[in-house]
Amino acid sequence: MSNIRDVAKEAGVSVATVSRALSDPEKVSQASLNKVHAAIERVGYRPNMLARSFRSAKSYAVVVLVPDITNPFFSQVIRSIEDRAQQKGYAVLLGDTRGLPEREKEYIRRVETRMADGVIQLRPDQPGNPTVMPSDVKCVNVCGCESTTGPRVRIDNRGAARSVVEYLISLGHKRIGVISGLKDNPHTIDRLAGYSEALEAAGLEFDPALIAEGDYTTWSGLNSAKQFCHMDNRPSAVMCMNDEMAIGAIQTFKTHGLKVPENISVTGFDDISYARYCDPNLTTVAQPAEEMGKLAMDMLLRLIEGQELAQQENVLPAEFVIRKSTTVPGNK
Amino acid sequence: MSNIRDVAKEAGVSVATVSRALSDPEKVSQASLNKVHAAIERVGYRPNMLARSFRSAKSYAVVVLVPDITNPFFSQVIRSIEDRAQQKGYAVLLGDTRGLPEREKEYIRRVETRMADGVIQLRPDQPGNPTVMPSDVKCVNVCGCESTTGPRVRIDNRGAARSVVEYLISLGHKRIGVISGLKDNPHTIDRLAGYSEALEAAGLEFDPALIAEGDYTTWSGLNSAKQFCHMDNRPSAVMCMNDEMAIGAIQTFKTHGLKVPENISVTGFDDISYARYCDPNLTTVAQPAEEMGKLAMDMLLRLIEGQELAQQENVLPAEFVIRKSTTVPGNK
Repeated sequence: MSNIRDVAKEAGVSVATVSRALSDPEKVSQASLNKVHAAIERVGYRPNMLARSFRSAKSYAVVVLVPDITNPFFSQVIRSIEDRAQQKGYAVLLGDTRGLPEREKEYIRRVETRMADGVIQLRPDQPGNPTVMPSDVKCVNVCGCESTTGPRVRIDNRGAARSVVEYLISLGHKRIGVISGLKDNPHTIDRLAGYSEALEAAGLEFDPALIAEGDYTTWSGLNSAKQFCHMDNRPSAVMCMNDEMAIGAIQTFKTHGLKVPENISVTGFDDISYARYCDPNLTTVAQPAEEMGKLAMDMLLRLIEGQELAQQENVLPAEFVIRKSTTVPGNK
Repeated sequence: MSNIRDVAKEAGVSVATVSRALSDPEKVSQASLNKVHAAIERVGYRPNMLARSFRSAKSYAVVVLVPDITNPFFSQVIRSIEDRAQQKGYAVLLGDTRGLPEREKEYIRRVETRMADGVIQLRPDQPGNPTVMPSDVKCVNVCGCESTTGPRVRIDNRGAARSVVEYLISLGHKRIGVISGLKDNPHTIDRLAGYSEALEAAGLEFDPALIAEGDYTTWSGLNSAKQFCHMDNRPSAVMCMNDEMAIGAIQTFKTHGLKVPENISVTGFDDISYARYCDPNLTTVAQPAEEMGKLAMDMLLRLIEGQELAQQENVLPAEFVIRKSTTVPGNK
């Protein structure tokens, strides 16, 4: 097995230069770096990166905390984080926490014990269940809300929900239902605020009977939608706070003999890939998952390298995508 | 900040015992372990795990190679791998490779350079694009095929496809189409073999015109299905080699005025969560994603610990789930 001296000899540089090229590449000229990398390839040298990490006190890994990796929106964001991390020579440690504080703590401990250099958190803080992040742990939140603090990347959830409802009102809908997430979830709070704002601007009354609580799973959308089916004064449109709940709700409406959108319009949120393939195709809010993941990783790298952030908060634009699940109010 | 001596004092054991409890817990009695852990908690000691890894030459991390983490079946398997790894004190490094050999190599290098102890590979070897796995890298393949070698966990893809086709034949279907993956994909090869076996056993002829090639994306299912819509002698049922392609195909059939299943039955493969919510609900093969991930992680841990495997190959049972997308052949 070849060693660092073989590399130096092959590259025609000193052992110290090879060592610096591995541990501190920015302090070596591009010409020397090229020579060293070519020599490493030729002699088949495999540096002990664990030893490098130990010397540099950096692990070149970041932890991604996600409540549920099987959520297709989260897996898109993670894919983008991983892509960027890999470009920058960092590994992504996956922390699927099921939203459990104990599991989050265990993963955060990996940073405290130097198995990782920082954290990207995909869950917004929730009342009663905040992320307990020690102040010396570098962390960026992505997919958060207005109440999220610290370095963060998010969309304007309130504005996006307002656009959805304004659109439904412009079609002529006056009774607009909501299938929300859990009431104390910050996404629910932001999106419900947007809903209320749009109603108020149009002079429509807020009716609590039109808010059905789900928990962002397809199953909860399917169940919550039932309360609208049996209503005397049924809403003519329902804004669902994510695509999974919208897909579940559509199934319930169909089972109850309601046509979507002829009898009831339905909107989603996120634009997961199935939004395009469900029947009817879903009108929804497209979050820029790829851009969000990339930007969060870039912010975390700056923090790890001890640099200042240009701004603590980045709010990226969301798109409103009109497909086939919405139309003018029709027959009940 | 407290150190290892504080822990020893608090626990009433020697420094050597604390050190062993951290690096080699199996060599310490349960009673001492409990004392040490309680003392660590009380004095707030944060061991430098990177130093531990360096001493033990283990990184307590495994790499998971996946062609696409946004594939919902893969994300289910990874979730289960991560769950098991976490129970065993291991981290999961995510390697979303897009199936690119260069990216796979980079991640495998993490094991060679000791940033990880082993690899779980979710992609089966493909002709022209095999995984180049150095012989000293511990690796387990999950979701593979009959041609997959080395330690592996898989289902019987051929048998599962045969069951699907036997069921369609039992309903009275005689012209059964296929939307396959790419022709040289090993999953395609195994599943097509099962299709052919079922036809032969029933005395039905294999007609190459009934095989439409996709690539396991929803979009390819949507496109490949078109070739059946315009056929003079249209198949009365189509077996799709995954759920995404089935969902795409159903969309195409509907657009062409064909009712599923009244005019054409459709089956999927994998049982992703949307299989239950698409319209009509999809008849499909349920792979035991959770069990597969858990078993693959357990096998890899045995390899990392230098233990023998009871068997190189574990073939887990798949379930055939009959929902609403299949029925007896009806009107064309």
